[in-house]
Amino acid sequence: MKANALNFSGGPGALPESVLEQTRQAIEELPETGLSVLGMSHRSDWFRAILQEAENNLRALLGLSDDFAVTFLQGGSSLQFAMIPMNFATAVHARPEYVTSGYWSAKATAEAARVTACREAWNGRAGGFRQLPDLRALDIDRTAAYLHYVSNETVEGLQFPLFDEPPAVPLIADMSSDFLSRPLNPDAYSMIYAHAQKNLGPAGVTVAIIKRELLERVPDGLPVILDLRTHVEHGSNYNTPPVFAIYVLTLITRWLRDEIGGLAAMQAINARKATRLYQTLDALEGAVSLHADRPWRSQMNVAFGFGDPRLDAAFLAAAHERDMSGLEGHRSLGGLRASLYNAVSEQAVERLSEALTDFARHRA
Amino acid sequence: MKANALNFSGGPGALPESVLEQTRQAIEELPETGLSVLGMSHRSDWFRAILQEAENNLRALLGLSDDFAVTFLQGGSSLQFAMIPMNFATAVHARPEYVTSGYWSAKATAEAARVTACREAWNGRAGGFRQLPDLRALDIDRTAAYLHYVSNETVEGLQFPLFDEPPAVPLIADMSSDFLSRPLNPDAYSMIYAHAQKNLGPAGVTVAIIKRELLERVPDGLPVILDLRTHVEHGSNYNTPPVFAIYVLTLITRWLRDEIGGLAAMQAINARKATRLYQTLDALEGAVSLHADRPWRSQMNVAFGFGDPRLDAAFLAAAHERDMSGLEGHRSLGGLRASLYNAVSEQAVERLSEALTDFARHRA
Repeated sequence: MKANALNFSGGPGALPESVLEQTRQAIEELPETGLSVLGMSHRSDWFRAILQEAENNLRALLGLSDDFAVTFLQGGSSLQFAMIPMNFATAVHARPEYVTSGYWSAKATAEAARVTACREAWNGRAGGFRQLPDLRALDIDRTAAYLHYVSNETVEGLQFPLFDEPPAVPLIADMSSDFLSRPLNPDAYSMIYAHAQKNLGPAGVTVAIIKRELLERVPDGLPVILDLRTHVEHGSNYNTPPVFAIYVLTLITRWLRDEIGGLAAMQAINARKATRLYQTLDALEGAVSLHADRPWRSQMNVAFGFGDPRLDAAFLAAAHERDMSGLEGHRSLGGLRASLYNAVSEQAVERLSEALTDFARHRA
Repeated sequence: MKANALNFSGGPGALPESVLEQTRQAIEELPETGLSVLGMSHRSDWFRAILQEAENNLRALLGLSDDFAVTFLQGGSSLQFAMIPMNFATAVHARPEYVTSGYWSAKATAEAARVTACREAWNGRAGGFRQLPDLRALDIDRTAAYLHYVSNETVEGLQFPLFDEPPAVPLIADMSSDFLSRPLNPDAYSMIYAHAQKNLGPAGVTVAIIKRELLERVPDGLPVILDLRTHVEHGSNYNTPPVFAIYVLTLITRWLRDEIGGLAAMQAINARKATRLYQTLDALEGAVSLHADRPWRSQMNVAFGFGDPRLDAAFLAAAHERDMSGLEGHRSLGGLRASLYNAVSEQAVERLSEALTDFARHRA
């Protein structure tokens, strides 16, 4: 297998080979325009059609009704951590609730606290961020502006189960690391957002799906660029958008629809990949330890280790010899991490499982 | 000539052919890593080296001392329009001064006015945005937080002359559409910023060059992501940066250094291009009119027209037949516009001049 196909990075990470091939061609010359994608104006008819297709494909994949606006932003989830309380924690709808369940949600909570008074509905730090709460059982103030959580903790490898029923307050989910990995019920949410690059396209674009009734709450007087209504009203073309990243995102939505067959099919593949890797790691129990407790194991990010930094480093070297990359743990946690995003194939996970078993047999 | 080389778009616009060729290769496989550039982690040694090289190359091209920090941001100039007053208009240093000289600076002034009390030092609307003021002769409050201006008005085709002496208050310049087109004296400025994609790389990255003493004024309590110190202190890697756009930007700085030979050489080429096109248009006086008054004609963007929308449309069609694109005027002004960014060659301008002369002879 090519090295690109054996990239287990937490992100930016692997993209589908067919998308890379089309992108390479588009750098030279787009079939539709005869120009490089890097030279296309964001005001061109071609780019307007790409924006529309990206939105349409996301609507079809996720089953979004017209109750939702779909918009493409810059600045990553980190900018949304500030913009969400600026836009939705108002005089009328105040004190949002935040679930702190790992590295990324802790950042979301801390940034919100700089913008507005908010309340921590749950914090898993005392348990080492190895468990997740049942969102339905949390003691939430029913007058809170919204409840914010991160659906998949990329660093710790924790993933919430799907959420089906609308909760008592508007639910806002950062799905950066499991967006488009499985179907969901959009009507349970008031806002879903996800930055690339995990399953979505090159770093530099963030998708936000926002219930239109939530947008009615945005207070006047925000800087225009930080007002989410600006981007919705201008069809994600208020200022120059990241044209290239949105183009590749569009190719990825085509790949999901045409080559994979939709999110249910994607979920089945992702479930087989995760099952294969967790079975391998469970079989190595004693030599290998997993960070997440079993009920909350993520299908996207598997944080684990051999319990000794020298062994972890030796495994990274052994994996490197087999063309595998991106297996270092996040700098905040150390150890190892395998990210199984949509573009990582079952064959790649098979290779990784073999490498782990071989290594544990001979070295660990 | 290839169509990519005849792209006169106001941006995103043309990139150098050798940069496109290296980018195409990098999508498949970076020579340094064996992985696609789109799969490279922002925490990889490779990307750290790219960030460092991008900064070093900009420092060398512009002659920046260590008094300046160099950082790479998302959100375009439009986000800086809000962040600059948030960061630098403080209780101690208040009421910044804004020069409104065209479409883009009007946006900067309006956004600043939403963030803080500010003063309009000059407004050229009554003159139809065809002239520019002498910045040195403006009546500026010497206690103002800063003076903000846009060095080149992309829409109207107006360009300020170079500014050599530090003014009475910190000078902040949006150089989005003429950055790296000519040498400058950085010590005249407290902050210079420029978004791609004009001369700089693909849309989605913004360069900010900030005097370190100005950063000492930033008030505490801003959202972390909107505090310019965050991005400086984290070496532009606080959150996932637009890896691909920064990579291409680095290739462009190499091209400027190695193939062009630096900014003085770039300026000489740009001056020849602008002279050739303006001579052509002046020779067609009567048939063609230019938007900008002569002393403020931009070397980067030439806004003009045949004085009749049908003739302008006919010229666009004639240009299209010769593989030229991007010559439509900005939607706010109509007419035609030729952008002569760094990657537009002298040969391309020659072709455009011929097309204009031929058209005027036979149709206008």
